[in-house]
Amino acid sequence: MDLKQELKKRTDFFDKQLEKFLRGGKPDVLYDAARHLPLAGGKRLRPNLAFISCEAISGDITKIVPLAIAIELTHNFTLVHDDIMDKSKMRRKLPSVHIKYGEPTAIIAGDLLFAKAFEAMHGINDDASVFKNLEFGLIDCVRWISEGQQLDMEFEKRKNVKEDEYLDMILKKTAVLFMYSAEAGAILGGATKEQANALNEYGKTLGLGFQIHDDYLDMSSDEKTLGKDIGNDIRNGKKTLIAVHCINNISDADKKIFHKIFGNAKATDEEIKQVYSLFKKAGSIEYAKNKAVQYCEKAKKALEILPDSDAKEILLSLADYSIKREK
Amino acid sequence: MDLKQELKKRTDFFDKQLEKFLRGGKPDVLYDAARHLPLAGGKRLRPNLAFISCEAISGDITKIVPLAIAIELTHNFTLVHDDIMDKSKMRRKLPSVHIKYGEPTAIIAGDLLFAKAFEAMHGINDDASVFKNLEFGLIDCVRWISEGQQLDMEFEKRKNVKEDEYLDMILKKTAVLFMYSAEAGAILGGATKEQANALNEYGKTLGLGFQIHDDYLDMSSDEKTLGKDIGNDIRNGKKTLIAVHCINNISDADKKIFHKIFGNAKATDEEIKQVYSLFKKAGSIEYAKNKAVQYCEKAKKALEILPDSDAKEILLSLADYSIKREK
Repeated sequence: MDLKQELKKRTDFFDKQLEKFLRGGKPDVLYDAARHLPLAGGKRLRPNLAFISCEAISGDITKIVPLAIAIELTHNFTLVHDDIMDKSKMRRKLPSVHIKYGEPTAIIAGDLLFAKAFEAMHGINDDASVFKNLEFGLIDCVRWISEGQQLDMEFEKRKNVKEDEYLDMILKKTAVLFMYSAEAGAILGGATKEQANALNEYGKTLGLGFQIHDDYLDMSSDEKTLGKDIGNDIRNGKKTLIAVHCINNISDADKKIFHKIFGNAKATDEEIKQVYSLFKKAGSIEYAKNKAVQYCEKAKKALEILPDSDAKEILLSLADYSIKREK
Repeated sequence: MDLKQELKKRTDFFDKQLEKFLRGGKPDVLYDAARHLPLAGGKRLRPNLAFISCEAISGDITKIVPLAIAIELTHNFTLVHDDIMDKSKMRRKLPSVHIKYGEPTAIIAGDLLFAKAFEAMHGINDDASVFKNLEFGLIDCVRWISEGQQLDMEFEKRKNVKEDEYLDMILKKTAVLFMYSAEAGAILGGATKEQANALNEYGKTLGLGFQIHDDYLDMSSDEKTLGKDIGNDIRNGKKTLIAVHCINNISDADKKIFHKIFGNAKATDEEIKQVYSLFKKAGSIEYAKNKAVQYCEKAKKALEILPDSDAKEILLSLADYSIKREK
């Protein structure tokens, strides 16, 4: 089984449906702005997760297209707004929406995508109480993602963040939508309560592992050159698991050095190297890497109760991929 | 029947429910930011409209509290985001959310209010298909409001706007939520199709009249001093019905003067007076005033099919109020 091939097959199918769903609408500029990010491609991990979780139960993915679109648009609406907040200029190798269309239109385009996500949900052709529960779950996700984004911003300004606070933040900001994708896909596939819970646990731990590995990649991808990503994260005081572990596991003397540099927008390259050495000294980079591996193992373990199937194989392989991928 | 008293009675009841619904939530700063505008008071016209429309059919308003909350939060979420786009510093006599909490938190607070609006909808205790239809209607409203806000911004940059384009814009930006409030309130009150349509028409025409009267108020409230509102609207090139009527009804010679000044951020007070004279000369201010009256009459006419009741009296009186109120 070729994971990339399996994902691509479903992504191609999904992209066609998404393009169709987002077609049309006036005024043009607003709808172009709303389509900009969702139609810029991407790995479509969340829709894939919904599809494959559904397949792991029953096999028919056409009926969960509305759910997959709703999930992807929810993800994209939060990215459009996040990019405004973070002043990010690029996303998926294109200028971000607010750079291309201006901030006011980008704010509305995000709101419109949010509305379109819930419009998509109404395409779910299951009984009304299933629809109601799934829709309520997606509302919960938006609430959690909002809380997670706010926590992420607050943590940047704080000196100390505990590991469980960090985990709560990435659970909300990233993992809940993975969790929802897997569980909701399974429910529409006709999952028992036990199977739905298993896919909830799979999605949650996959999402946590995925996000921690992401932090790790930022910190290790250009280790030799100590390039832009590392410098930015340190200068912004970004509380990754690596930083959080380091803060909580260095001597008081090292802490003084750390806090002088960490979060200082004007830190020199030499100072960035100093903080990086502290990460190494505290074993924080390895710690994060191992933590991601542990979550990946938990994700795979959650699948044990499912009958063997091609879809289950793909989910197992996806868990491995989530902590092996490179940038 | 004292209209103010009738509205106040329902507003006080509603405010208590809203406060309860918005209580709690972490992180504090995000939830405080989300509560800032909804709990700042206001006339609660839309919830009142839902309540009274429901009463005009069946009398029991407690069951539509979730709907009323959802409508008010939808309105507030769009205001929070609009204030960021328009760089408005004040709202309901308080600093706007982005001024008090910063833009990033204000963007998320708006998103959270949007999610909370749909969370509130889930409190509707009617059968699932009624819920689904009402919820889909609210999603439509958000889409229309987004389109209306984008059109409003685009019109400011355009030289000419036709009256029907202006009416389409205010229909989307303002009237659809009035329309929805009245119709959805009636539906939950057990309205027949004919009654629901009547309240849809009432809400729509009330909303149009309300918005046109609002434009008229901005232009006439400080007529003697030609104060801030008039100056701002003219300097921003704001396409009110007054401006739109004037553009389309003046001589080519006057048009040249008009376009030199209208939308020019640096226009002098003397030039503002010149444009104001053109409004007067074209009869645009009177035209807008009459148009608002016509919509109010349409709104009242729509209610003819309803049986007589105290609630119907209040709705009739509300239509009169909407074009008689002063700032």
